[in-house]
This record gives sequence, structure tokens and C-alpha cells, in this order.
Amino acid sequence: MVPRYSRPEMTAIWSPANRYRIWFEIEALACEAMAEYGAIPKDAAITIRERGDAAMAAFSDTDLARIDEIEAETRHDVIAFLTWLAEKVGPDSRFVHLGMTSSDVLDTCLSVQLTQACDLLLKDVDAVMAALKRRAFEHKHTVTIGRSHAIHAEPTSFGLKLAGHYAEFKRNRARLLTARREIAVCAISGAVGTYAHIDPRIEEYVADKLGLYAEDVSTQVIPRDRHAAFFCTLGVIASGIERLAVEVRHLQRSELREAEEFFHPGQKGSSAMPHKRNPVLSENLTGLARLVRAHVIPALENVALWHERDISHSSVERNICPDATIGLDFALARLASMMEKLVIYPERMAEIVESLGGVVHSGEVLLELARAGISREDSYKIVQRNAMATWTKLGQPDGRTFRDNIASDPEVSAKLTPEALDAALDSSRHLGAVERIFARVFADA
Amino acid sequence: MVPRYSRPEMTAIWSPANRYRIWFEIEALACEAMAEYGAIPKDAAITIRERGDAAMAAFSDTDLARIDEIEAETRHDVIAFLTWLAEKVGPDSRFVHLGMTSSDVLDTCLSVQLTQACDLLLKDVDAVMAALKRRAFEHKHTVTIGRSHAIHAEPTSFGLKLAGHYAEFKRNRARLLTARREIAVCAISGAVGTYAHIDPRIEEYVADKLGLYAEDVSTQVIPRDRHAAFFCTLGVIASGIERLAVEVRHLQRSELREAEEFFHPGQKGSSAMPHKRNPVLSENLTGLARLVRAHVIPALENVALWHERDISHSSVERNICPDATIGLDFALARLASMMEKLVIYPERMAEIVESLGGVVHSGEVLLELARAGISREDSYKIVQRNAMATWTKLGQPDGRTFRDNIASDPEVSAKLTPEALDAALDSSRHLGAVERIFARVFADA
Amino acid sequence: MVPRYSRPEMTAIWSPANRYRIWFEIEALACEAMAEYGAIPKDAAITIRERGDAAMAAFSDTDLARIDEIEAETRHDVIAFLTWLAEKVGPDSRFVHLGMTSSDVLDTCLSVQLTQACDLLLKDVDAVMAALKRRAFEHKHTVTIGRSHAIHAEPTSFGLKLAGHYAEFKRNRARLLTARREIAVCAISGAVGTYAHIDPRIEEYVADKLGLYAEDVSTQVIPRDRHAAFFCTLGVIASGIERLAVEVRHLQRSELREAEEFFHPGQKGSSAMPHKRNPVLSENLTGLARLVRAHVIPALENVALWHERDISHSSVERNICPDATIGLDFALARLASMMEKLVIYPERMAEIVESLGGVVHSGEVLLELARAGISREDSYKIVQRNAMATWTKLGQPDGRTFRDNIASDPEVSAKLTPEALDAALDSSRHLGAVERIFARVFADA
Amino acid sequence: MVPRYSRPEMTAIWSPANRYRIWFEIEALACEAMAEYGAIPKDAAITIRERGDAAMAAFSDTDLARIDEIEAETRHDVIAFLTWLAEKVGPDSRFVHLGMTSSDVLDTCLSVQLTQACDLLLKDVDAVMAALKRRAFEHKHTVTIGRSHAIHAEPTSFGLKLAGHYAEFKRNRARLLTARREIAVCAISGAVGTYAHIDPRIEEYVADKLGLYAEDVSTQVIPRDRHAAFFCTLGVIASGIERLAVEVRHLQRSELREAEEFFHPGQKGSSAMPHKRNPVLSENLTGLARLVRAHVIPALENVALWHERDISHSSVERNICPDATIGLDFALARLASMMEKLVIYPERMAEIVESLGGVVHSGEVLLELARAGISREDSYKIVQRNAMATWTKLGQPDGRTFRDNIASDPEVSAKLTPEALDAALDSSRHLGAVERIFARVFADA
Repeated sequence: MVPRYSRPEMTAIWSPANRYRIWFEIEALACEAMAEYGAIPKDAAITIRERGDAAMAAFSDTDLARIDEIEAETRHDVIAFLTWLAEKVGPDSRFVHLGMTSSDVLDTCLSVQLTQACDLLLKDVDAVMAALKRRAFEHKHTVTIGRSHAIHAEPTSFGLKLAGHYAEFKRNRARLLTARREIAVCAISGAVGTYAHIDPRIEEYVADKLGLYAEDVSTQVIPRDRHAAFFCTLGVIASGIERLAVEVRHLQRSELREAEEFFHPGQKGSSAMPHKRNPVLSENLTGLARLVRAHVIPALENVALWHERDISHSSVERNICPDATIGLDFALARLASMMEKLVIYPERMAEIVESLGGVVHSGEVLLELARAGISREDSYKIVQRNAMATWTKLGQPDGRTFRDNIASDPEVSAKLTPEALDAALDSSRHLGAVERIFARVFADA
Repeated sequence: MVPRYSRPEMTAIWSPANRYRIWFEIEALACEAMAEYGAIPKDAAITIRERGDAAMAAFSDTDLARIDEIEAETRHDVIAFLTWLAEKVGPDSRFVHLGMTSSDVLDTCLSVQLTQACDLLLKDVDAVMAALKRRAFEHKHTVTIGRSHAIHAEPTSFGLKLAGHYAEFKRNRARLLTARREIAVCAISGAVGTYAHIDPRIEEYVADKLGLYAEDVSTQVIPRDRHAAFFCTLGVIASGIERLAVEVRHLQRSELREAEEFFHPGQKGSSAMPHKRNPVLSENLTGLARLVRAHVIPALENVALWHERDISHSSVERNICPDATIGLDFALARLASMMEKLVIYPERMAEIVESLGGVVHSGEVLLELARAGISREDSYKIVQRNAMATWTKLGQPDGRTFRDNIASDPEVSAKLTPEALDAALDSSRHLGAVERIFARVFADA
Repeated sequence: MVPRYSRPEMTAIWSPANRYRIWFEIEALACEAMAEYGAIPKDAAITIRERGDAAMAAFSDTDLARIDEIEAETRHDVIAFLTWLAEKVGPDSRFVHLGMTSSDVLDTCLSVQLTQACDLLLKDVDAVMAALKRRAFEHKHTVTIGRSHAIHAEPTSFGLKLAGHYAEFKRNRARLLTARREIAVCAISGAVGTYAHIDPRIEEYVADKLGLYAEDVSTQVIPRDRHAAFFCTLGVIASGIERLAVEVRHLQRSELREAEEFFHPGQKGSSAMPHKRNPVLSENLTGLARLVRAHVIPALENVALWHERDISHSSVERNICPDATIGLDFALARLASMMEKLVIYPERMAEIVESLGGVVHSGEVLLELARAGISREDSYKIVQRNAMATWTKLGQPDGRTFRDNIASDPEVSAKLTPEALDAALDSSRHLGAVERIFARVFADA
Repeated sequence: MVPRYSRPEMTAIWSPANRYRIWFEIEALACEAMAEYGAIPKDAAITIRERGDAAMAAFSDTDLARIDEIEAETRHDVIAFLTWLAEKVGPDSRFVHLGMTSSDVLDTCLSVQLTQACDLLLKDVDAVMAALKRRAFEHKHTVTIGRSHAIHAEPTSFGLKLAGHYAEFKRNRARLLTARREIAVCAISGAVGTYAHIDPRIEEYVADKLGLYAEDVSTQVIPRDRHAAFFCTLGVIASGIERLAVEVRHLQRSELREAEEFFHPGQKGSSAMPHKRNPVLSENLTGLARLVRAHVIPALENVALWHERDISHSSVERNICPDATIGLDFALARLASMMEKLVIYPERMAEIVESLGGVVHSGEVLLELARAGISREDSYKIVQRNAMATWTKLGQPDGRTFRDNIASDPEVSAKLTPEALDAALDSSRHLGAVERIFARVFADA
């Protein structure tokens, strides 16, 4: 992910320093457990922990360079790290990594990084939910037009729109917790997962200390269906971001202007057209959603590793793990801030509800006619006739509102009193269930 | 999905007859609830239910043709169905669908179909798990080589391989239950989800009767993040099928012949080469996995509908809902049967373990040397030296086994007794944890 | 592809009857060539051709059933067909398929089918181009607002919009020709592509008669990079359909109403809201684009077959070949018809150009100020100031047009004459290059 | 793309410095053309060119920081650059960018970068082709087993295998040239592509100088179908890399050992198993292929921008343009080097051809029997019978070769002389067409 779309906290999780810190922690914990179960001397485990902790605390670019140098020769990243660690720990380093295989370290480390990333993403989702909730309550009774097919349908409340997105992010939060559990696993099971040279209790000890679960059956690696499920979840969340971003893009278009992204003083919308204020944040989020979603396919392709593992997943994960989590973290943060600051124009919303001469109330009138005993088929024809008459003459000198048209239709006036018609043409009728829906959505929030 | 890869039970779920049956059920239940809450006459609800039930019981191709005929004129599928229903129910039909919108019916019906599909898939996964469990226990102690990078690593048990796939399908089962919950939702909330013309208790009643949950906030539709999450799960399962299929394809390749798909008498492997027995089932599963997985992307693209809904998701879902569930049902059933009948060759597995002169025991020897006090670095060099000597001369007249090479290396014999070396070169050492792993994996099965 | 989105001509290409017709043609042509080069008796080739032609001419469901019956036993489709053919041809059938392998028939047949499909798609693209060209010339001088970020930018012509889509489909046509060449290949090269049992001249003869090229190196199959490139092209075209569909969806939205899909008499837009006319065709095309595009990934995954081939591509292709071509054929035909009949509202377009008080001319004023010697930076500030003043007061009692605001800005009037300002605020200035662009785009059309 | 998989030459194309260099070049060329056509003073164009060239020649991190600083305020990258440029050029800077829009610069720059990237990729493909050609000729007559379904089929030559991959990369080269032409386009057409404030001849001048073509119809941007087609091509090439990588992974597997990636002295295959030499390069290439391929979907999703453009494509392209080209450049270079150094074992290949008792010659014997007058059906049964007898007893004490079995079958010996049988069982018969194929493939190389 390019720096433009990266935030430091998430980026740090994927830094070499964090990775080596976790690698050491895994090795040190394994040594502690081995010492506990008599596989290596207790003194050795203590030395490893102490000298290793000191080395990690002092970890600098010099250490990075040294590890890179060893890797250039051995062409093996874990061996390079262990060799560097041995230089720091001394002779007791021969007890480090005993009976373990590189993947024990690599995969358990990836689990730790992904759970760290997940915890940040959960905070991000919380921020989005907080913004949506605040704005939803703020506009609980703000009447706006509901649209299907981008055609005016019936009035709704702007707060209800936002509540719908809140509900989606509540689902996304739950999915993220499930995804976190998917990848919160530890494997320290040796070359092909048989614990041939290592006591399974070591794995349990390390897992426990790291807040992970021991993998049921690891091969050489933690099975990649877990990671695939994780990236699928990120893809679903990205698509939820896109849905809200597309909504904002629509609301801000020149013909609607129902809402607008906050426009910074000094900001320039266009180098050529000084009048422009563009919904660039939400457009940007739309693109970021495509990026995050694109990682789902290679994550799924990574599942079918050969036999006890091949390493084809590695180059994929070195990219998509940081890219997807950094991109999603950035997108969620941007979304939260965008929704917090979104400039909302209730008057303009009200204006648009009536802009088509009131035809948006056609459904209500249809129902009243049906209730008054006209068949559904006939009611439909009566209302459609008047709606189309409004529509086709809209903006013309002889154009009349739907209200006018329907009121003067004899088949209507024969059945409905003016009061009944007025009630059917009143937007507030549409907001009756808002309290109930809010209670349902925000129940536990 | 082409008929070749379709099974009748799943295909039936997606038949027009099943769809219309569910549509009627939703409308009839809604009428019952409306009658209950005084919105329509009780008699009407009873008439609708009775005459509708009779019409659905007698539903035939003539009815299908009639509905198609109406749709050709109205260009609206739900209206076509309701018109047909009105022909069957008579005047009381004017109380059907009152205050509802087409999507209330369409989306709730899709939820019913997807949960029906999900229930079949759960049975399919159970069959895969049963086959894997049976074969895993059968080969719990069958020694076979574990491979990483398709290179011999260390021995493992064939049962353990299968247990790993069992564990993955156990996870897939859990994911399927989560996915089922995702899409087991009902929405009867009107044109833009405000319940403007319908009592929210109707939705609760229908949901309850259909075994669904009421949607928290529907717009005009049930939000598509739910469906996206569902298809993602199918994609993850498909990838798990692929992993096992690829394993079988490897095992059957001419140079391994460790296992073979059952070859039917009368079957011809090749029109040109009579000697061939090809792993066509597992290759077929690999392709089916690609197909099911491909549906993930359009399902994710369906999330960002415009405003309260646009209908772009519809053409996608008309295809991917049947295609993905039918394809996955077929693939799972094929997988279960393939694994049940898989011909397994333990002798050949044993032969392959030793085929490289015993170098697969290098890790064990390395550990013994380390335990005997040689540094890890030096141990590695000693063992690698002997392994490479075996490797490079393999099959040559002066080639010697790793066993021979290592035994005659003075640096080794100085440290390890012949007994210790023998123990290190014994495959059974690798199966020690199998019981423990089996207990863990099959605990609740 | 579900029947709803299928047209008979394309569907017929993928029928078993067409497939068997092509299979027979390949076998018969191969026999002719073998007879020519002395590999089989000339009489046999004649008998095979005559009896086979007769059998294919009389081909009926009985034959289909018979072939299916044989396949159920042999589990091999080509052997089943050859057995059926032998029943029709008699003893000379032993000369059929001599030295060939099933894939020689299957892959060459697929090439024929894909080129047939491609030819239909080319006709479809031609129809889209014809519609776009006609409507583009019709609206060459229809002023409409150009939008970036869905925000009004500067005026353009509606014909120019359409010309841009025409240019894209011209590119798509060229891509389709390239894609056709990619898959117009014949392989009759035997089990692993060595021509071990068959003269390479046979392949050349058959290729020539079928209008194909002989594959440079076939393995057992025609390499799947060709098919991948083909499906990528379909994906690009589908995305072009989506771009135009999304444009129409925007134009039809209630707030724009600049254009509308033709609304059939009798059509119902909504079961609940009689006033609605929804852009359902373009929404449908958006979904179909997602479907066609989704096939790109499995087509790419099909490339890496194992060694001289595995059969994992087969189940993929049995689905995506018909699905993608049928879906795209339907979508292109629908698009052409939709664009032919699109109801376009030039007055509404003109109204929208001025709807924001003329701020869309800000860029032109900026340039005039710059030309008059004010620095770009200062010009920008002056224009932005007046544009924002228009914008923020739009629709308010004291709101003034951009025209009014800019005219009364002393920094402007100091530099620009009223005539110069009028010219800068005239939309026609934006259409000056339309003739030139049209000449360029429609040069060879 | 992480640095691990990046090479400096491709990375440099995507550096800010290169981008700003191209931006300046576009602006300077546009000024030259404007001066030429009288739109700005000739002196100004000269000053802009001279001072700008000097500023670009001296471009340093200080300049980068200054541009970033301005962008932080204006939130617009092109305006930030132009402001910086104005600081360098002085008052004449007011003639820079006149009548242009940011996208004129951004999109034309992207075209330049993509063609630069394409030129590097062409060189990379050339290197792959050179390696494949050399190794193909080296092993033109090296007999190896051809495999379908990973099951031994018939002998072929290893050179022919490589020739097949060479042919694929020859196709990829042609596709890359087509893709280069797709994106080698320039657009300098103003805010919505109408040339409202700029002479179209400016665009032609700039295009010509940059080696690009003028876009037929740009909106505000160069239409994204071009970029989608470009990324599709990268995806097809990536899949071709994967095909060859998977082949090598298979060849190196322990049971085959027909070929091996070069193993560096000092390299360690496994931290735990000193005997291992893993095909890590080809596995890595498999993963990189997945990554490059994953960019196809967002590139396709970028096509349907709204109206004259929205900016959702931008965040996608900022990532996938460098990622896909850097990843593919790295992969191609790695592939070329891997194939150059691939250690090939012809003896092992020969050994494997005979490893199954000669059953791989069953097809040849079948044909001989058919030629000798036995029906195809009967021939098939005879040969399959003997093949299966060989197969099922393989490796057992009473196991006999296919050669032995077939020779002693009375139905065979009644028809074929021992000499005819020997000829049918000789691998060299399969290499007869190799010269012809090589001539065809390497004709123009």
C-alpha cells in the first residue's frame, strides 16, 4: 500500500522490527516451555530470554542490516534471524528452535500480526459506528426521499439511511471477531506437523502466552483456509465501505446537493474549474474498496498448497497482509472522519422530496384507494395515470402537481375525502416506524 | 451450472415451482398476520390460504406458462405471479401483498432458498467428514512421507493427512452455519424499508413461521453484505475441496501411485492410450472449485447498491445462486464418494519413504547430534554433507544410502551409538503424537 | 446462463448437436487428409464422410440419448461419440480418429465454437456501434453538462458523450478480432503433441478447411493462455457495457431526467409505486457485466495445467464458454436496442446546464482573466470567490447567479468587457471541437 | 510490491522524481506547442523550458518536500507541482498549463510510465525467451515422458516441452506489444474533453514528441478500458509464468528429480531438514503470478467511471500500476535466470520413461494392432488387458514388464512380428516431428 493511504500504527505491525520482536518472543516462550518440560536446561532458557530481551530492546538498523547480510548468504530468513540471535545469546543459542521448523515461527508470528491488525480494525469499525450512530440520531427525523433504481420512491428519514449503514457495520464488527478467531492460532508442531521432535505441550504453552489457540492439525503450516476466510471478511467490509461511499457520492452530485464532504479552507477542487467541490474522499474510498477486495482471490488461491505445504503462499502474503490491512485501516479511518464531518442539508432534502410534484406519494394513494374498495388493478391504473400526467408535464407551463391531478380525478374523489387524500400525501406518515427500528438497531450500542 | 455437474435435490430448490411455492407461502403468511392484526378481514386470509394452497398443490406447467405470459406483458415477475394468484383466489386477492413491495417477497424467498441450499450443503459436508474420518482412522498408523515443497521432508501418517482435511471441513461446517445465519433473514418492510404501509409485526410473524430472523434495517432490500459473506464462505469451502483434490492428484501421479481414484470397470482412461487411469474426479473438482470461487467477486460487487437499492444484483444472483450452490453440492458429493472409494496403497507409501536412501531422517539425526553436544551449525553441516552425498549418487552403482553414509561418518560415530542412530532412522518415531492429535480433532465427532 | 438472459443463436452454438456436428466434421476432414496422404484407404474416407454426413443430417434426440448411454458406461465423451459413429458408419469406422487423441477433437471443436461465438459478438458490437453512431450524430450539437466527480464541470455535447462510447466499442471490436485470432487454432497432434502417430499435414489440412491456424506447439491440448486472453477481452467489453449502462442509470435518475429507457406500454415499474419508471435495462446490464467479468479469473487459473495437460480446465470451460458468450451476446443486443430507443430530453439537459447559476462557466472566466494579465493564482481566487458565493446561496431569496456575481466583481470588470464576459459564459464555446472529434472517431465508420 | 520482489529499474519508473520529470515534460511541450500556435509568447515557452529543465536537473529531496508541503495545503497534487514550478520559473509560469486540466497531465504521464514499464517487460520477456530457446535446443532430443493428468502418457522430448513454453512467451510478447499500443495515448483536451480552452493541435504536438498517439475521445480522462486491457495482458503473462513454474515444481519433486533449480552453495533448504533442496524460486513465481493476476479485477472495475470521470480509479492505479509491473518484472527476470541455470537430468528422464514397465508405449501398440486389421475396440481391449496386468503387479516379484506381457499375448503375436513390436516400443518414434515443430516455433527467432 502506498504511503499516501497508510497510517503509522498499522504500518508498524508489518515492520521488520515488529516481526523480529514476535519471532524472538515465540522462540523465547518455546524455550521456557522446553525448560519447563525438561527438554533443555532451565539456565539456558533464562539466558536466552534475558540476552534476547536485551538485544530486542536495543534492536536497531544495524541489526536489520546484519540479518539481511546473513540472509543474503543463507537465502533463508529464519536461519538468518537465528544466526543473528546466536551472536547475541551466545552458546546457549543451540537450545533455541530445537525440534521446531521455520514455519512454526513464521506462521505463529503471522497469526500474532493479523490479530494485532484485527484489533486495530475493530477500533476503526468502532469509530465508523460511533460516527454513524451520532449522525443517525441527529437526523432521525430528517425527511429525505428514499430511492430505488435511483428513482424517487417514498420518503424516509436520513437517520434511517445511516442506521442501515450502522447495522451493516455492526455485522462487519461481528464478522471481524469471527475472522480474528479464525487466525488466532499457533502452530509449533515441527517439520510436517507430527511433533516428531517437540512436545505438543510446548505449542500449548506458547499459544496460551500469546493469546492464541493451538492449531488442531497443522501440516508444516497453519492451513490457509483460515487466512482465506480472514481476507474474505476484509473484502466484505471493504464492500460495505463502498456502499456508504457511493451513497455520499450520489448525495453530493450537483443535482442533489443533499450532503457534502467537508471542504477544507485552502483546498482546491479543480485546477481548471474554481467552482468545484468534489466528493474526493468517498471516491477514494470506492477505489480502496476495489483494492482490498482484490486480495480475496489470491487468498483463496493460497488454500490448495501441495501436500504438507508449498511456499507459493508466501510471496502473496508478504504483500496482501500489509496491503489489505493498511488499506482497510486507512479507509475505515477516512470513512469515520468523513461521516463525522459530513455537511448535511435537510432543507435541500425536503425540497427534493417535493421536486417531482408529489408523485412520490403515489403508493400511499394506491393503498387508500384499495382500502376504499377499489381493486388493486384498478387502483394501480388510476394512480399511474395521474402520476404519468404529472411526470410528463413536469416543468411545463401547464404542468400540475400530482397532488392537483389526483385531487381532481373523479374516480379518486368519489372514494377519498380531501382529508384522507391530504394524509396520504404527507411525508410524516413514512417515519412512524423509525423509533422502533432505531430501538432494534441501537439496542446494545 | 451445466446438468453434468448438477444433482436433482439442489436443482429443485432453484426451480420456478419452488420459487412460486415460497412466494405464495410468504404472501399467505403475511395475510394471516394482517388478519391477526386487523389489517384485512380474517375470512379473506382464510380464503387466500385455502385457494392458494390448492392452486400451489395443483401447480403445473400450464401455470408456469400463464405466469410467463403475464410477465411478458407487465415485465414484472412479482406482479405477474400476483395476477395469476388473483385468477385462482378471486376477489379476496385484493388483500394480498397489501403494503408490501416486490422485494419483500423476492428477498425473503431468496433467504428461504439459500437456507434450503445451505442445509443440503451441510449434509454434503457431513458426508465428506464421515468419509475422511473413516479413512483417517483406517490409516492412522499408515506411514507415508510428509512433503514440503513437494520434496520429501519427514514421515507422517496417512491418517494424519486425512485428519488435517477433516479438521478443515469441520471448520468449513462451522463457517457454513455462520453463513446460514447471515442469510436467514426476512424483510417485509415496504418500498424503502420504513414500514410505511405495513405493520412491522407482520414481518416478525412471517419471519418466525419461516424460521428466519427479521432484518434489522432493510432498505428496499435485504442488504447484500449478507449474501456476499455467504458466497465468500462457499468460496472458502471450494478452496478446501481443491486442496484435497490436488493432494489426490499428486498421490495418483505415475511416479507416486500412493493412492488412486476408484476406476470403474468399463471406464476408459484415454481413447489413445489404453494403459491410462487418470485422476479425473479430483481434476474435475479442481475446476469446479475455480467456478465456485469465481462467484465471490460479483457477490462482493453486489454490495454497493445505489441508495435504497438498484436492481443490478438481480441478474448476478439469478445465476450465481443456483450455479454456486449446485456446483458446490455436486463437488462435495463427488468428493465424499471419491474419498470413500479411494484406493490406498500403504506398501507403496512405505516404499517411497525409503526411496531416497533414508535422507528423510536427516532432521532426526541433526537433533541427536545437537543433543549430543555438537553445535546446531556444525550438526547441520555434518548432516547436510551426508545427505547431499546420498542424493547426488542416488541410483548410481556406487550410491550408498544415507543410513550407510551417516553411520560411517567419524564425526557422527564419535557422538552417537549405533542404537541411537537406528532409533533416529526409524519412521515410527514420527507417529508418537498421532493419538493425541486424533483425540483433539475427532473429540466431538 | 439462465434462459432469461439467453438468445437462441448463441445458445445453439453450445448445444450438443452443434458440438457433435463439429466433432464429426473434424474426424471426417482428418480422414480425408489421411486418405490423401495414404494413411487410410480412400474408400474408407468416402464412406465415413457419406454415412457420417447422413447420420449428422438425421441427428435427433435418439442419437443424443444413445451417446449419453454409451458415455454412462465408458465415462468418456469422445469414445462414446466414436462408438455411436461406428454404429452409423460400419466397419470403416476403424479408420476414424486414427492416431488422434480426444483432445485433438475437443480442443479444435472448442476453437470452432469460440470463433462462431466471436462472429456473433462482432455482429452484436456492430449493432451497438450503429446505434451509438446514429444517436451521436443526432445529438452532435445538443448541449449538456459534462461532469467530473458527478459534479458539474463544463458544458459538452451529448453527441460527444456517445461518440466516446462509440470509440470504446470500436476499440472493443478490434480487441475482439485479436481475441478471435487467439483462439482460431487447430490441434491434431496426438497424445502429447508429438505427432507420434499422425502426420502433421493432417492438422494443416483440417485447420485450413475449418478456417483455423495450426497450433505452433500443442501439448495434449491447445495452450490455455489463448482462452485466457479471449475471456479477458470479454471482460473488458463487459466493463465497457457497464460504463455506458451506468451513464444511462445516472441520466435517468429522478433529479436528472436527461434521458430515459424506453418504457413499454403495459410495463409496470413497481408493484407498490405506480409513478415509477426505472432504468431496469441498464441496471440489468450492470449485473451482466459483473457476471461476464467474473469469468476472467477462472480462465486465468486454467492456464497453468500440469505437464502436457490436466483436465481441470474442462469443468470450468463447460460453464464459462457458454455463460460468458451467451451473457455477453444478450447484453450487447440489449444495449444496442436500449440505445436505439433511448428517450433523450435536450431541453432538460439545457436546463441542467444553467441550474447552478452558471458556475459551470467558471473555468472559462478564469482563462479570460489570465489572458487579461491577472496571475493564475489570483484569477483562481477571484473566480472561486464568486463561484462559492453563488453556490452557498443557491435557491435562497438573496441568491444571485454566478453571472451576476462575476459581473459585479470590480476586479473582473476592471479587466473584462461585458462582451468578453458574455462570450465566456456561453456554452457554445465548448462545442467548437466537436466536428473535428467526430471526423476523427467516425473516420472509417 | 515489497522491496524483496522489486528491481531498481522498474521501481524508478514509479518514483516521484520520474513522475515530476514527465509532468514537466508534458507542460513544457504543451507550452512549446502553444507558442507555436500563438497562444502564448514564444519567449515565455523558452523561459519555461530552460528554467524548468534546470530545476528538474537539480531536482532533489528538498523539492519533493516542498511539493508535499504545498499539496498538504491545497490537497491537489498537480496544483502543488505547478506552484512549485512557478517558484522556479517565475512570472512566465502563468502561461503553464493554460487551458489544460490536471488529468491532461496525470493521464498522459501515466501513459508514459506504462509504456516505459512495458518496454522493460518486453526486455524481460526477451530474456525468458532466450533462456527457453537455448535450453530447448540443448534438449531437443532428450527423451522424457509426456504426461496428461500427471499420468505417464507417451514419450516426448524435453526440448519440445520448453519449445511449447517458448511459443507461449512469443504470444505473450505479441500481446505485450498490443497492450503497449493500448496505453500509448496522450490526452490534452481540457476539463471534459472538449478542447474548450485549448487547441487540439497542442495535443497532437505533445503526443508526437512523447511517442504517443492522441486519444480519439477523452472525457476528462483517457478511458480506462485501455488500462483494463493492459492489466489483463499482465495477468495472462503472469499465468504463463505460473504454468512454467508449476512444471519445474513438478520436475523437481523428490519422486521425479528430472530437473532442479540451481542450489547456491551456502543456501539452506530447511532449518530442520538438512537434506532438502526446495524449488523455492518456482514456488515464489507461482505466488507472484497470483498477485499480478489479482490486479485484473480492480482494473476492470475501474472502467465504469461516472460521466466524464470520477476519481475512484486513482487510488487503485497508484497501487496496481507499480505493484503489477514491478512484480511482473521481478518474476520474469527470476524466471529467465531460473531457466538459464536449471539443472536438467536426462538420465533420470530416461529412467522414468521406462519406470512403469513400458506401458507408456500402449498407444503405439494399439495402433499397430489396428493397422494389422484388428478393430479399434478389440485392439483397445487387448492392450488395456496387458497394460493393467503390468500396472497392478508393478514392483511385485512376479511382476512383468508391459513389453513381456504384450509379447506373450497370443492375440498380439498372431498379428505383429517381434520386429514390429520392438519398433512400437521404441521411444525414438515419438521424436520424429520435433525438427518440424522447432522450425515452426523458432522460425523468426
